[in-house]
Amino acid sequence: MTVKVAVAGATGYAGGELLRLLLAHPDVEIGALTAASSAGTPLGSLQPHLPPLADRVVGETSADTLGGHDVVFLALPHGHSGAIAEQLGPDVLVVDLGADHRLRDAADWQHWYGGEHAGTWPYGLPELPGARERLHGTRRVAVPGCFPTGGSLALAPAVAAGLVTTDVTIVSVTGTSGAGKSLKPHLLGSEVMGSTSAYGVAGAHRHTPEFVQNLSAVAGRKVTVSFTPVLAPMPRGILTTASAPLTGDAAAARRVYEAAYADEPFVQVLPEGQWPTTSATVGSNTVQLQVSVDEQAGRLVVVAAIDNLTKGTAGGAVQSMNIALGLDETTGLPTAGVAP
Amino acid sequence: MTVKVAVAGATGYAGGELLRLLLAHPDVEIGALTAASSAGTPLGSLQPHLPPLADRVVGETSADTLGGHDVVFLALPHGHSGAIAEQLGPDVLVVDLGADHRLRDAADWQHWYGGEHAGTWPYGLPELPGARERLHGTRRVAVPGCFPTGGSLALAPAVAAGLVTTDVTIVSVTGTSGAGKSLKPHLLGSEVMGSTSAYGVAGAHRHTPEFVQNLSAVAGRKVTVSFTPVLAPMPRGILTTASAPLTGDAAAARRVYEAAYADEPFVQVLPEGQWPTTSATVGSNTVQLQVSVDEQAGRLVVVAAIDNLTKGTAGGAVQSMNIALGLDETTGLPTAGVAP
Amino acid sequence: MTVKVAVAGATGYAGGELLRLLLAHPDVEIGALTAASSAGTPLGSLQPHLPPLADRVVGETSADTLGGHDVVFLALPHGHSGAIAEQLGPDVLVVDLGADHRLRDAADWQHWYGGEHAGTWPYGLPELPGARERLHGTRRVAVPGCFPTGGSLALAPAVAAGLVTTDVTIVSVTGTSGAGKSLKPHLLGSEVMGSTSAYGVAGAHRHTPEFVQNLSAVAGRKVTVSFTPVLAPMPRGILTTASAPLTGDAAAARRVYEAAYADEPFVQVLPEGQWPTTSATVGSNTVQLQVSVDEQAGRLVVVAAIDNLTKGTAGGAVQSMNIALGLDETTGLPTAGVAP
Amino acid sequence: MTVKVAVAGATGYAGGELLRLLLAHPDVEIGALTAASSAGTPLGSLQPHLPPLADRVVGETSADTLGGHDVVFLALPHGHSGAIAEQLGPDVLVVDLGADHRLRDAADWQHWYGGEHAGTWPYGLPELPGARERLHGTRRVAVPGCFPTGGSLALAPAVAAGLVTTDVTIVSVTGTSGAGKSLKPHLLGSEVMGSTSAYGVAGAHRHTPEFVQNLSAVAGRKVTVSFTPVLAPMPRGILTTASAPLTGDAAAARRVYEAAYADEPFVQVLPEGQWPTTSATVGSNTVQLQVSVDEQAGRLVVVAAIDNLTKGTAGGAVQSMNIALGLDETTGLPTAGVAP
Repeated sequence: MTVKVAVAGATGYAGGELLRLLLAHPDVEIGALTAASSAGTPLGSLQPHLPPLADRVVGETSADTLGGHDVVFLALPHGHSGAIAEQLGPDVLVVDLGADHRLRDAADWQHWYGGEHAGTWPYGLPELPGARERLHGTRRVAVPGCFPTGGSLALAPAVAAGLVTTDVTIVSVTGTSGAGKSLKPHLLGSEVMGSTSAYGVAGAHRHTPEFVQNLSAVAGRKVTVSFTPVLAPMPRGILTTASAPLTGDAAAARRVYEAAYADEPFVQVLPEGQWPTTSATVGSNTVQLQVSVDEQAGRLVVVAAIDNLTKGTAGGAVQSMNIALGLDETTGLPTAGVAP
Repeated sequence: MTVKVAVAGATGYAGGELLRLLLAHPDVEIGALTAASSAGTPLGSLQPHLPPLADRVVGETSADTLGGHDVVFLALPHGHSGAIAEQLGPDVLVVDLGADHRLRDAADWQHWYGGEHAGTWPYGLPELPGARERLHGTRRVAVPGCFPTGGSLALAPAVAAGLVTTDVTIVSVTGTSGAGKSLKPHLLGSEVMGSTSAYGVAGAHRHTPEFVQNLSAVAGRKVTVSFTPVLAPMPRGILTTASAPLTGDAAAARRVYEAAYADEPFVQVLPEGQWPTTSATVGSNTVQLQVSVDEQAGRLVVVAAIDNLTKGTAGGAVQSMNIALGLDETTGLPTAGVAP
Repeated sequence: MTVKVAVAGATGYAGGELLRLLLAHPDVEIGALTAASSAGTPLGSLQPHLPPLADRVVGETSADTLGGHDVVFLALPHGHSGAIAEQLGPDVLVVDLGADHRLRDAADWQHWYGGEHAGTWPYGLPELPGARERLHGTRRVAVPGCFPTGGSLALAPAVAAGLVTTDVTIVSVTGTSGAGKSLKPHLLGSEVMGSTSAYGVAGAHRHTPEFVQNLSAVAGRKVTVSFTPVLAPMPRGILTTASAPLTGDAAAARRVYEAAYADEPFVQVLPEGQWPTTSATVGSNTVQLQVSVDEQAGRLVVVAAIDNLTKGTAGGAVQSMNIALGLDETTGLPTAGVAP
Repeated sequence: MTVKVAVAGATGYAGGELLRLLLAHPDVEIGALTAASSAGTPLGSLQPHLPPLADRVVGETSADTLGGHDVVFLALPHGHSGAIAEQLGPDVLVVDLGADHRLRDAADWQHWYGGEHAGTWPYGLPELPGARERLHGTRRVAVPGCFPTGGSLALAPAVAAGLVTTDVTIVSVTGTSGAGKSLKPHLLGSEVMGSTSAYGVAGAHRHTPEFVQNLSAVAGRKVTVSFTPVLAPMPRGILTTASAPLTGDAAAARRVYEAAYADEPFVQVLPEGQWPTTSATVGSNTVQLQVSVDEQAGRLVVVAAIDNLTKGTAGGAVQSMNIALGLDETTGLPTAGVAP
């Protein structure tokens, strides 16, 4: 089986990573590549790391250009996916890498993003309880945010098992590609190299409601999340340190995590004493996890590493595509990272 | 007044930074430079960034070599400072950059470091309540650990004012120089560049009891600290994200911090909306702070940036020396960072 | 067809990259993994980026362990490959990633490496004139050094076409992984980040005779090479700037390069105005090239980018294996890089 | 003596470094700070590494604002310095950090920069033969380009002594701050980290004529320069590898360099066997040099390290100011670098 795939937003970082993965996917034929401002340009000058697509000319993002494909990936700024998806029709698999269809609550969406809520689609984090089933055969997928990908998987087993309270703290150190190619002074190489800074502190980051939604669904009651993202001098990777007051049996923590992820092809609970490093996951769809209990502070501490562009965005999108189309979930997705 | 200064451990990162600062100190004459394994080597081949000292030959670390100076800085592995200090006599100002004399509780010290406790010296973090007074005229100083420097200052005002509970969470992202020049595989450039990882997780890091000691003293009761250090790909800098459940008046938070640090020459509470970056503090003795309240999560969140080698080690040491000797506290200490 | 492959030196950077590529190679089954000092350890703690091999236990490097495979890759310190290859027998394809069998002249080898010369094997840089033919069906391959890979391809067409004199200058900026995992102070993250330095200057680097051998063979007469490697703060990548006095027709330069590499699957002569970046080649087997003429200085200047671990080592090794075994040369080798 | 100093272009990287140095200069009082687009903004939000100036409000760049100072530094885009200088009058010391007044040949200037040539001012590289004398008492200084600073000092002694031919090759690896704060996609952190690339290749870089001018003046005849700048993932630093065919006595090379720089306070010819690293010079006004002869290739090879923002721009500017004003040349200029 070969599916014909279009990518809208092909010139950004998410689009570039998606194309890298799709080039290695045995069941995919890459069709239209579109973008907003670069239409008419050969992709080679915008994504020089993709020689096989160097001569492809970028088209305009429109239902016309994107029509006639089996799968359409949308890597667009928020607010743009709903209208395009509607025009593509219900039989096309539309995978939205943006934020438009992640939140269930319309008021929540409006509060965090502004404008009208485009609706809620099946959530592309198959490792969450119940999520994989909802992806089977779907023609609409909302790919999770990069932070909620690693952070939700870091805490879901403990929250589900009642090991911790519902008052969790998450600090995630991220590489710069998560901010995209936008030309902002604080994203210049001279500014980020040799420096680390926090942003969106104290509940101001838009991924906060997504964390709350994911963990509350798992807990069966409202979970409170204190989330702080930290920008570090690396292009890729998110290292999440998540903790919460321990209420359950400390000795059970490791067992709970091993059981939760025993059959997951992309989640690796590391052997005791080994801690995740983001470099080990670069370019791979793997989540590396370690769990530990701080007995003095009475907290469960989980550390998780992912590549924000792969498992955190494009890899997660391909994984969900595989499930939706009935392919083997792991097709075309490396688990080995590019290290060092 | 010119004081003659010796540095033991002159070939490490702390020693190198100390010498850089001392070269610019108008009241200091640099005397003996000693080290363990490199005795007999010109300093230029070990600290190539210090041209004025390039031809100085490194001596052996002994009371003989270190004797005859007004001030002796000890940048030694833990367990070595007590014996040397004793031989130097009570009139020499001994500033210990190591861990030997920081903890008040001997059992605590033994638990975390092993071996016999060498005693407790006045703690070289003058910005903590009461600390500056204890440094006036002292002839012994225990320089704080790099993590407790930034982290304690991040939380002390809130804890002292009863703004938060005593259950605090601290995640500190650090540059690699904090680990020193030790030849360990995970510290190789190939391993650290492009990667972030946590270590000493879940209460396992030796700076934990120092945090507890500092914050408990300020609070007047036992404070519980969940501390996670994270290694990031930069040579210098610590960015601390500290948070705790808010119990006091959210609106008072900023006022409390501004009041606490109004007269501190090295602590800069940033204007609202501006967040600390470690690069802004590189090579300087400045602590950059911002405070905020997460109303959804009900937590106070403070972010602090320092240079681990300057304010976090060598700069803090010189600041304490200045106080102990009755010099202006800011002498020889830059507040401007080397950025970008 | 499935070939059984063993890797000696599986715990180093070259070995790790080789395994990453072999995991994605459809015709390969990974057999024995061996190393010198880590025998008995699970690979997961040494190469955490290779989850599928995490539980594999590293064996000792010996003919016993390595026997019984169709292909054996040797990623060993120089001086060790010859003896092992002999014990493996003539029917096993032995691919030597080390320096032992690259140089044709025994005296040359002794001068640069010391000890006895183990012999000369077909040189695994198929893009050089005549090289591909010698690899067909061979059971012995000498993988080129990482610098000579990019640098030889940068200059070979011009030298072959007589566009330049035989007096060439090469400055290659390299990432740190080229130095391997050896624990040397100048390779610590704190030392390499934020810094650039030259080493092996003025003809002192061991890859110099390999450059001379390659380019002299192409030229049909002795070529003189001034080679300077420069260490830059990145884990992977080599950017080579090569130049030589122009003797031929400036207008022909581009045509000569396009013709030379028209059919090469892994060499990409970039469109005019676009210059190579090492990040575009990370994890890929691609060589990116640009050629230009400095009319004022009268020199041809060529810039080439590769990933030192992929095309420069492990990818080149797999490419040669493919040719030797009669597989499609590109099997299992990505041309798309992992960027940003 | 206290001189009142104004800085035009105070919000860029050159301006920021200049202010850092001026803050530590004992004879300077910092007056007006101006910029183009940020007038009205407090400097603290634009240069967060300069706490002592955080509350200073940026003014407009005009003769009005800049008037009334003893010294005016102009860190402006090229083409803007001449007109402002004229309005400031002949008694004010004007130090131009831009390119306007570096080249002697008006046609040359027009060819490389476009527009009318503003004239030639005494060249602020006192270590070049004759340059220091021309700076004494001058009221106009043209600060050299960052590349010509290190590269000219790397070759001048050999060229002056006739040790080499006049056909020189220079490859300079630079940090990103040399490109300033301009918002260009290839300067984003995601693009520069983990990557190296060449630009302005084959004689296209504007510093080429400045190299030619400097070295030709020293040689007494036209020198041909093949210059290639390479962008590396670090904020600061330039490592220059310069070479030329050796014509003189190889054994004399070292002696020539030691003699040339024996009395220079900011040029350090390293001991044999030690090679320059850019990190050793970060934030300092030092040039680190090493010289060597490649006997096989018959070339002299010199490696030089500087900080492009300090000795390469702002430090060089302050050094020239000191000379022009009759102050000790080294006042306020650190020779110790901020490393690691």
